[in-house]
This record gives sequence, C-alpha cells and structure tokens, in this order.
Amino acid sequence: MAQTAELIAVGTELLLGSIANTDAQMISRELSALGINVFYHTVVGDNLERVKAAVEAAKSRADLIITTGGLGPTCDDLTKNALAAAFDRKLVYDAASASRIRAFFARIGRPMTENNLQQAYLPEGSLILQNDWGTAPGCMFRSNGVMVVMLPGPPRECEAMLRNRVLPYLFPLSDGVIVSRTLKLFGIGEAAMEARLRERMNAMENPTLAPYAKEGETELRITAKAETEAKARAMVIPVEADLKKEFGDLIYGVDVASLEERVLELLKARKLTLSAAESCTGGLVAKRMTDLPGASAVFRGGVVSYTDEVKHKVLGVPQELLRRNGAVSRAVAEAMAKGVRQLTGSDLAVAITGVAGPDPDERKNPVGLVYLALTDGEKTWVYESRSGGSRGRIRTMAAHTALDLLRRYLTDAPIPEDAGGYSPDSPCPYFS
Amino acid sequence: MAQTAELIAVGTELLLGSIANTDAQMISRELSALGINVFYHTVVGDNLERVKAAVEAAKSRADLIITTGGLGPTCDDLTKNALAAAFDRKLVYDAASASRIRAFFARIGRPMTENNLQQAYLPEGSLILQNDWGTAPGCMFRSNGVMVVMLPGPPRECEAMLRNRVLPYLFPLSDGVIVSRTLKLFGIGEAAMEARLRERMNAMENPTLAPYAKEGETELRITAKAETEAKARAMVIPVEADLKKEFGDLIYGVDVASLEERVLELLKARKLTLSAAESCTGGLVAKRMTDLPGASAVFRGGVVSYTDEVKHKVLGVPQELLRRNGAVSRAVAEAMAKGVRQLTGSDLAVAITGVAGPDPDERKNPVGLVYLALTDGEKTWVYESRSGGSRGRIRTMAAHTALDLLRRYLTDAPIPEDAGGYSPDSPCPYFS
Repeated sequence: MAQTAELIAVGTELLLGSIANTDAQMISRELSALGINVFYHTVVGDNLERVKAAVEAAKSRADLIITTGGLGPTCDDLTKNALAAAFDRKLVYDAASASRIRAFFARIGRPMTENNLQQAYLPEGSLILQNDWGTAPGCMFRSNGVMVVMLPGPPRECEAMLRNRVLPYLFPLSDGVIVSRTLKLFGIGEAAMEARLRERMNAMENPTLAPYAKEGETELRITAKAETEAKARAMVIPVEADLKKEFGDLIYGVDVASLEERVLELLKARKLTLSAAESCTGGLVAKRMTDLPGASAVFRGGVVSYTDEVKHKVLGVPQELLRRNGAVSRAVAEAMAKGVRQLTGSDLAVAITGVAGPDPDERKNPVGLVYLALTDGEKTWVYESRSGGSRGRIRTMAAHTALDLLRRYLTDAPIPEDAGGYSPDSPCPYFS
Repeated sequence: MAQTAELIAVGTELLLGSIANTDAQMISRELSALGINVFYHTVVGDNLERVKAAVEAAKSRADLIITTGGLGPTCDDLTKNALAAAFDRKLVYDAASASRIRAFFARIGRPMTENNLQQAYLPEGSLILQNDWGTAPGCMFRSNGVMVVMLPGPPRECEAMLRNRVLPYLFPLSDGVIVSRTLKLFGIGEAAMEARLRERMNAMENPTLAPYAKEGETELRITAKAETEAKARAMVIPVEADLKKEFGDLIYGVDVASLEERVLELLKARKLTLSAAESCTGGLVAKRMTDLPGASAVFRGGVVSYTDEVKHKVLGVPQELLRRNGAVSRAVAEAMAKGVRQLTGSDLAVAITGVAGPDPDERKNPVGLVYLALTDGEKTWVYESRSGGSRGRIRTMAAHTALDLLRRYLTDAPIPEDAGGYSPDSPCPYFS
C-alpha cells in the first residue's frame, strides 16, 4: 500500500526554464486527495544517467514513483529506457499501441512520421495505459514493492491519463482518506491572516490548517485524515465554522475555483445578467467570466474602451465629463458602468478605468490608481483602489476587485464605501 | 566557479499541489543564460529532516545551491534552520534586517505582528540580501566550494531578489557564455517540425537545437556556448538562417514573447490601429493585446458580443443575417469585423465567433468550429477553423489564429484562404 510517493519529471526544457512543472502540481493535488503523501518532486534533464540516478534515489524512499515526460517521439525522449534499466526490464514492442498511434494520425488526417512508432516500445510486463488524448501511451508496473507509473508530459494528456487510467488503480492503495476544504478570501494578506490564526494552527494536528497566498488572494485549507470520508468530513465542519466566524465576509467562497466562478454561480442563482466596460483591464473581466462554461447564460457582453472616443461613442460617456475629469476618474467609471448596462441590456454592470502602467497617464495620475463602478440601474457604487506592482498585477487586482464588488452585491454583504485602496499585504481599509 | 547548480524549493503547498514551482522556471532561465547548468530541481515540504536530506544530496553534486521559500514569518518556515544545520552554522539576529522589516510595515501603514521578526535571523557569516519587495531578507554564503543562496518564495520577490541581489555575484562564476535564440512558429506541430529537423539535430552538438511545444504553438531554441558572447552569437547565425529557409513564414518571430507582442510591434512600425469583436473568445484577444505596455498606442478597443442582441445593437450585424446564418457563421464573422472597425475607427479589425463548448450551439454547430474575420476596410478575409480539446484550448487556439492572421497581413505573408482548419499536431492545410 503506497504511503509515500515521489514525482520525477523528465525534460531539459524544465531545467532551462522553458516551462514550469505544472504536471507535478496537478498530480500532487490528486494524490493528496487520496491520502497518499508526496514527499519529493524531482526534475531532471533528458540525460540517461541522471534520470537513472533520480529513479534510484526515489526507489530507496518511496513506494509509488510517477514519472512525467520523456515518452514522446523525439530522440531525447528516454524516460522508458532509464526506467527499464533501473528496474532491469527490456523494452518490448506493443502492437496495439502502434496501431492506436497510426489511427490517431489517420483521424487528424496527417501522415505519420516513423519516429512516432518509438512510442510503442514499453517495459516488459507492464500494464499499458492507453492514451486517447495524444500519441504516447503510458504504463505502470510493480517491482519489489515499488509501483512505477509513467505518464506523458503534455499537461492535457498527463491529467487525462492520471484521472482516467491511473487513479482507479491507486484508490485501493491509499489507507484512510484525506478530505480538505479550502476557504477563499479576498481583502486580507497571508501574514495578517496567519497572525490571527497562529495559536489555533499550532494547536492543531488533525485536521490541519494551512494558509496560502495567491496573486492578491488568500486561501485557508483545512485538511483532515480519517479511515472514512464521512469521518474526515465530520472533523472539518467545526474548524470551518470557526473560521467563518473569524473572517466573515472576507471569505468569498469555499472550494470554489475563483472569484469569477463564485460570481457566475451567484448570478445564475439570482437570475441576473452582467456586462462589463473595461479600460485599463482591457477585457480581463470579460475574459475571466467567459472562461467558464455556461457564462453565456448570465454574461451578455462587454466593451473594451481603450480610447476616449470609444468611451464616448460606444458607451455614451459625455465628452464634457472626459474633458473635465479625465478618463481615469470617479465620474467616468460611473458613466461607463451605466453606459454598458444600457447598451447590453444587462441587469448589472461593472466598469474599470485606471492606470495600469508602466507610465502614469497624461494627467499624471499615479500607476495603480483604478476607479471601479458597479451599477444595478438604481444605485451605483464607485470604489477607488490603489495597488502596486507590475502592470499585470495591477490589472489582476483591478479585475479581482470588480468581481469582489459583484460578489458582495450578490450576497448582500456590505459594499465598500470609497476608500484609500489596499495592497494584498494588508486588508482593504473597509475590510479591517 | 559554479558549473552545475541545483534548485531546492521548500514548501508543503508545492507538494499538495496548491501552487506550481514557477520560481524554479524563472531561476533556471536566468542561470542557463549565464552558462550555468541546472541539473536538478527538488521540491521538499516544510520538514526539517527532509529539507536537510535534500540539501545533503545537492551538496554532493552541485557547486551552486539556490533555495526558494521557507523564509517567511510563519512557524513552518524553516529553510534557514535546515541550511544552518546542514552547513553547521548558527542563526544570528540581524538588526538591520529587523529595522527594514519594521519600516516595511510602517510604509504600508499596518501594525507589525511579532512573528515577522523571525525573518531577521540568518546564518552566521552570510552575506545578507536586502529584500525591497517584501519582508523576508535572503542571504548567501560559501562553504567548502559550495555556494548557497536562499531566496524568498513569493514569485515577485524571488525574481526581483535574483535579478538585483544575486546575479551580480554569479556573473564572475560562470565560465563561458550561453547565447540562445528562440524561433517562434505557429501552424506546425512539434513532431512534424522535429521530423523535418531530425538529421540536423542529431548532427549538432554546439550550437544545439531544441524543439518545444506550447499550447498550439511551437518553438525552436538554438543554444550556443562560447568564451565570449560575440563568439556564441556568431555560432547561432548560420543555424538561424538555415531554419528560416526551412520553415519560412511559419516563423512568426525570433526572441519575441508571443504572437500579440509581435503584432503590437508590427502595428507600431506600420502606424496602424486595431480593434476586436469577440464572441467565443470573450475578450481574450483584447486582454492579450492590452497585457502589453504601450498597447494603447495601437489598440483602440473591442466589443465582447456574447449575445445576438449585442452583435446587432452594438456591432450593427443585421438581424436578418443572424436569423439566416446563425451567430456562428462566415457572414456574421465578416459583419462583426466590419462593425467593430467602424465603431472604433480603427484601421484593422478582427472578429471571432464560434463554439467554445463544452456543448454545441443551438444550431448544432460542433464544438471547436470557429469563424475568424480580418478586415482593413477594403478587403475582408474570413477563415474557418476547427480545433479540438477543452473550452480553454479552443479559445486559446482561436485567439492565436486571429493574431496570426494579423501577423501575416502585417508582414505581407500569404493570408490563408478558407480551409478545413487544423490542429496544433498538424500544420494548417494552407500552411503545409
């Protein structure tokens, strides 16, 4: 029964920094959900000796080894060779895999280059994991108490293979179940959050409580381990209740992926539609809303008004207002929100105008100054935010804030009065 | 002189899959640019014994060890303790760091919780790396031939600290310089590309040639190592010329970050402005263009028309057209492009309408069917694309394709006639 697992990612592109090891993140999530502890991630290049060395080290410590990458058609794909050597097995030709690879190319209507057939050679005596999402099959085998799983590197394939081909075999291996619930917060930094929780956290062993910081957001993950899922769930409940008392409406959701997902679910529940007028965020709010399946039920559309002319002509912002206050102003944010609401016929509308940088605008407004407006047709709220950091960060924070204003409106939580803005290191003034 | 480096990331949140190890990607990029080879990345949890074990293994193999994370104020931040133990040094209180931490909180106008002062304890005899981007200082020391660098985990802080505090010390350590040039391609898959290059790649040692696949894009990275930068550059030139002959206008740029960056630079050079009308991509093209500083010089704005009403009312798409052809059609894509161009007064406009999924539209158009239009006011091109995969991938491919149509227009490369679409595993029919 696999208690401890290690992940080995093979690929020089990881060591050159061309890509991040997102496979390890995805697999780690899945394994911890099964109560399998992951103790190490290792990344090693396309080098036979070093891959073997990494596997030898893992063999001595773990009872489950999952490798990602190096199963492809190109000459530097040598994971199978390294594992075959480390576990003393031959590579054998699998006709079924070969014909699936041929079929794949037939399906996409492309000639198959011969190097693709390399992918049909797999360690002798291994269970072959059919890849319906790409060409390289995976495989798994057991060797003196160690289970070895090989998965392709491309994230889409890796995830589909793990979920559909591997997890069914791993369930029986896990003793006990881990249940975790994640509270998502917006408007408080990690250190401030952790300071408020310190005693409690130190006192806790099972369930455990872990704070995380994301770009401008924070998370609290409660994790309980028990023999059954029901028992684990029961252990989580009181902790969650306690945290909800502590942080109140700073918590925007539980086990929800993002602010936009929470907003979508609230809009559906209240049968309301939304539109967005965006200047400095340039479509980020619309993009985030429409990332989600089912967005079309509630999101009617948006305008990216990157020039005053578009603000006036499309959104109907009076030229006088633009002249007098400038595009980055409370008055223009309000007019943009009302304009896009009318234009799209949505129930609610948000607007964002600000200075994302790197340079101040022509009126010398500072980088990071952003005005956000939310209107429901009857009342309009305008919030002034000042955040720091890169252009990307300022845009992200502005979109977060717009979505959080919506979330607050839709949950009848207090909507901020205008305030001096905040940084993710510190709560919004109105939050604290 | 550090030849080989290893990165050790400390943090249970990495092993639980809460975040990806993007620090390792960023540091690896910087080190390889210096000609320092990174042989391993290791991720280990907040566990003193296992962190020590990871450090011991690295000590025996590398002459540069960079750790990330575990320097923060919370009780599970123990990287310093593990390294102090592994290299047999005491932790000593650094008054200067303590006062900088106090000043940081004064600056953001927040009370400092005491746990923050933990961050002022650093290994005896180490060079302290002042952190102007957060609270936790880093440090570096040398111990029997091994250089050890400790950096904070938050990506923004980690990158700023590496660039501003660490790299200056590493330059003298690197022997020789690595120069690499990256050709970016759109419209051909990795295997097809690699098949065309196989002989050449196998024959090459220095420079080397490495193919990479990104979501729907491919890259060719040429890397040369020499004593001087000039020599390394000279070695790259003929290889680059050869590849340009081979792949022609499939190459959209060299050492350019993205299609949108290339499009922005071309629009600026030709003093042309752009707007976008987006249905299924929901603002993704606008978002990507405005991610870039200076976008306001060329990007006038866009409309996210997520309903027929918005397509008609805002973009002026005739209702008759929508009724007859449906929103996902060649005719509507064309009308959207012309509409947004007129509305925003831009020189060029692109439009995207399609089915991102997960479900077919009400007219039973298949998921992945996307119509793209590009207009310059005189001529309008419409392209039909069929891609597969998730909603996110279909949206990404649609945005890529729209940007590539623009890139082709702006470089006078052939613009595709309507074609049966393509998948990233295979060139577009018109490309091949």
